[in-house]
Amino acid sequence: MNCIFCKIVADEVQSYKVYEDQDFLAFLSIDPITPGHTLVIPKEHYRWVWDVKSQDKYWLVAQKIAFALRKAFGTEAVHSKVVGEEIHHAHIWVFPESAPSFNKKDLAKNAELIKNAL
Amino acid sequence: MNCIFCKIVADEVQSYKVYEDQDFLAFLSIDPITPGHTLVIPKEHYRWVWDVKSQDKYWLVAQKIAFALRKAFGTEAVHSKVVGEEIHHAHIWVFPESAPSFNKKDLAKNAELIKNAL
Repeated sequence: MNCIFCKIVADEVQSYKVYEDQDFLAFLSIDPITPGHTLVIPKEHYRWVWDVKSQDKYWLVAQKIAFALRKAFGTEAVHSKVVGEEIHHAHIWVFPESAPSFNKKDLAKNAELIKNAL
Repeated sequence: MNCIFCKIVADEVQSYKVYEDQDFLAFLSIDPITPGHTLVIPKEHYRWVWDVKSQDKYWLVAQKIAFALRKAFGTEAVHSKVVGEEIHHAHIWVFPESAPSFNKKDLAKNAELIKNAL
C-alpha cells in the first residue's frame, strides 16, 4: 500500500519518532502548528481513528504524549485534533496550545525534549 | 463553582443530552459546527481533558458518539477536537465532517437522531 505513514512505521521513510510500542507510534509533524506537534498512529493501517482496535490504549498513548508536551514545553494547555483528510491512515494530532520560546521547525531538538519528558 | 457545564450536569441549565452514564455526559453544542456536534464531558469538574481519570473510558464514550454520528447522519468522517479555552471544564468535541442534508440548528431533532443511533 502506498501510504506514507505505513512507510514511516516500516522505517522506509524517516521521521522524528518520539514514542513507540507494539501497536502505536508517535512522531513529529513535518509541518507543525506549534513546537512539538506530534502525530499518534496505529502501526496497523486504519482509515479512521474511531475504527482502531484498542481504542482505549490508543488514547492512553495520546495522553502520554500530552503529558510529555506539557513537561517539555512548559505549557499546561495541550490541544488535540482528529481530522483525517490529508493522509488516509488514522492519526491523532497532539500539540501544545503555544510554546513561544521554542522553535517549531527544530524537529530534532523538539523530539529530544519530548523523549526526555516521557 | 460558576461553571456552565457543571450546571448542565446538575440539570440547572438545560441541554440536549444524548448520552449519560455514571461518570460522563454528552450533549449537543448550542453553536454547532456541523449537525450533531456533540460535547463529551466528565461529570466531575476537570480543567483539562488529559487530567480526567478513567481517560480510557472517557475516550470510549467519545468513540461511541462518533459511531452514533456516523449512523445518524450517514457520514463516515467524524472529527474531534480538544481545545478548552472557551469553557474551563474538560470537553471533547465530536462532530461529523459534514452532513449537508441535515439542519445543524435543529438540536431537538438531531439529539433524537443520535440517541436512536446509540
